Amino acid sequence: MQKNRLEAFSDGVLAIIITIMVLELKVPHAVEFAALKPLLPVFLSYVLSFLYVGIYWNNHHHLFHSTQHVSGGILWANLHLLFWLSLFPFTTGWMGENHLAPTPTAVYGFVLLMAATAYYILQRAIITQQGRDSLLASAIGSDWKGKLSPALYFISIPLAFVRPWIAGGLYLFVALIWFIPDRRIERVLANVD
Amino acid sequence: MQKNRLEAFSDGVLAIIITIMVLELKVPHAVEFAALKPLLPVFLSYVLSFLYVGIYWNNHHHLFHSTQHVSGGILWANLHLLFWLSLFPFTTGWMGENHLAPTPTAVYGFVLLMAATAYYILQRAIITQQGRDSLLASAIGSDWKGKLSPALYFISIPLAFVRPWIAGGLYLFVALIWFIPDRRIERVLANVD
Amino acid sequence: MQKNRLEAFSDGVLAIIITIMVLELKVPHAVEFAALKPLLPVFLSYVLSFLYVGIYWNNHHHLFHSTQHVSGGILWANLHLLFWLSLFPFTTGWMGENHLAPTPTAVYGFVLLMAATAYYILQRAIITQQGRDSLLASAIGSDWKGKLSPALYFISIPLAFVRPWIAGGLYLFVALIWFIPDRRIERVLANVD
Amino acid sequence: MQKNRLEAFSDGVLAIIITIMVLELKVPHAVEFAALKPLLPVFLSYVLSFLYVGIYWNNHHHLFHSTQHVSGGILWANLHLLFWLSLFPFTTGWMGENHLAPTPTAVYGFVLLMAATAYYILQRAIITQQGRDSLLASAIGSDWKGKLSPALYFISIPLAFVRPWIAGGLYLFVALIWFIPDRRIERVLANVD
Repeated sequence: MQKNRLEAFSDGVLAIIITIMVLELKVPHAVEFAALKPLLPVFLSYVLSFLYVGIYWNNHHHLFHSTQHVSGGILWANLHLLFWLSLFPFTTGWMGENHLAPTPTAVYGFVLLMAATAYYILQRAIITQQGRDSLLASAIGSDWKGKLSPALYFISIPLAFVRPWIAGGLYLFVALIWFIPDRRIERVLANVD
Repeated sequence: MQKNRLEAFSDGVLAIIITIMVLELKVPHAVEFAALKPLLPVFLSYVLSFLYVGIYWNNHHHLFHSTQHVSGGILWANLHLLFWLSLFPFTTGWMGENHLAPTPTAVYGFVLLMAATAYYILQRAIITQQGRDSLLASAIGSDWKGKLSPALYFISIPLAFVRPWIAGGLYLFVALIWFIPDRRIERVLANVD
Repeated sequence: MQKNRLEAFSDGVLAIIITIMVLELKVPHAVEFAALKPLLPVFLSYVLSFLYVGIYWNNHHHLFHSTQHVSGGILWANLHLLFWLSLFPFTTGWMGENHLAPTPTAVYGFVLLMAATAYYILQRAIITQQGRDSLLASAIGSDWKGKLSPALYFISIPLAFVRPWIAGGLYLFVALIWFIPDRRIERVLANVD
Repeated sequence: MQKNRLEAFSDGVLAIIITIMVLELKVPHAVEFAALKPLLPVFLSYVLSFLYVGIYWNNHHHLFHSTQHVSGGILWANLHLLFWLSLFPFTTGWMGENHLAPTPTAVYGFVLLMAATAYYILQRAIITQQGRDSLLASAIGSDWKGKLSPALYFISIPLAFVRPWIAGGLYLFVALIWFIPDRRIERVLANVD
């Protein structure tokens, strides 16, 4: 199987997810500057989710860069990841419109957790196919980011019911540790190229 | 004609169909967990349709993998398939929002039946062009899945008026028998590669 | 300049136009079969516009198949075509929801006329770049379809105010004469390949 | 890293932005020609934004034409540009629906300014990677358009509160000076090819 089509399809879905999220920023009827104020939390949660989709796209790119063949298992693991990412517009809108109310914030974290899990499964599927000594396995190494992130999402879910803003802060914190592109993979790939 | 553009266009349409279906999951105004409860059937029908679009994308991939040239007939057979798939967001939303009410469930099945028929026509068009001894023809073999699926959809349409949940169960059952990627084609193609 | 990116961008826009048109088919609240009845004209105008977008995609494919280089002029001629095509969801929805009322039907025809004109300009731009003896010029030949279509749209616009259904019939008629893929171009290209 | 995927993803996002902007042209309930009149400013602001997205797509094309490798920095600079462009449907809708009311017009200009800044940063990132003697650096030369545009947007923002139509005219003026494809880059690239 060709990986090109899987990449093109994933790019398409991610591009649409990003652009659909912005639709939650509904054009206000009023024309005063104040009309933007209630949109601020919607805007901020859009920024956060944009960052996440950007990170997923970036990492997806790295993941398949070192992949040659795509098995049926990898294909469905990828669709599974896209499924959870496709729920981002919903959770982003719900959290943003309700100013980080407890339940929407917890549900946002739950979908982040499921997406991270789906990403982990996809990564495993690729490494399994490539073998233990694979390029990707050595590039990922200890994968501390991949282990820390779901742990922080997991903590954030109950936390959201007590201190939703701290949960939101943790989502941002995880985004920021991923924001720095994964130099490990880049370095190993650069050595190979 | 190049098959790349046909694949790219189909990937685009399928990617947008998937992401547009999720728009039926409308952000609730309430912030309680209970606000998600009425969305559950909409969510479940989204999962089912996501699975279907994933299966169509997966099989579409296989279908054109063994194809070199694309005739005008294949091109329109492909657009015909995309037409029926483009109605998925509508039927998914109608069935989901009405908790598998009889008519929407029957209409959902009708669109599944038409998409399956369109897929069959596309498959025929490719085999006709490649010749009877084609790679695809031998890979498909008896094509029991391709014959069973429309039969089950056909039964489900009247059944939906009597026992809509059984019809819904049949739609899920057909999705699951396709979910397992088509090892037959994969095997034959692997031999060739 | 590479034509790949122009093709990919155009495919993306066309894929989204098709899928956005289907959003005009709004999920009804009622669950009876009768609830679909008022949607019938919307559905039929969707079918007509789907056919048109399919034809434009198909012909666009042919147009650029024989093109190697893309000048700035061709690039903007292409964007100009996409602009008019991007108005299809609007005119399709307006005509469909109002059961071919005179003004919406005339406006639908006007956008068809502008799209046909934009296509003609794009075709001219490509031929100008390739030279009079170009592959495309000889493939198109007398281009009777390309000349008849705008003439019929032009007639349909005033006609829509008197007999909207005849105007609608003319739109369908033009779609059907294009529906048959352009064998002329296919034949010439097949000779070359 | 491959630039293909970055281009494909950017094309996808730009294609969706264009098509989502047209959704602000909401299908009117009335069927008279007069029903289109209130849509005129929405339509005109759509035309302006379509022109802008077309220009960005065109220039993006040039920018990456001369690029071979894509670093992590370029990747995020590109996502940063797409972020600001993704706000175009919102600002276009707000400005258009309110007939160039002061605040929406100023906000429209602010997003134009941020997009221009993001484009400048992306251009810098590519030149930095390629080195001072790079193809792109020599192609851009004095970059008077790139310097004039943000200056005019900057002036337009306060001006929008006093004379919104002049601000709108300046946005159109900037679009028109970019509309003419960047012959400098084309010339240099043509020499190289």
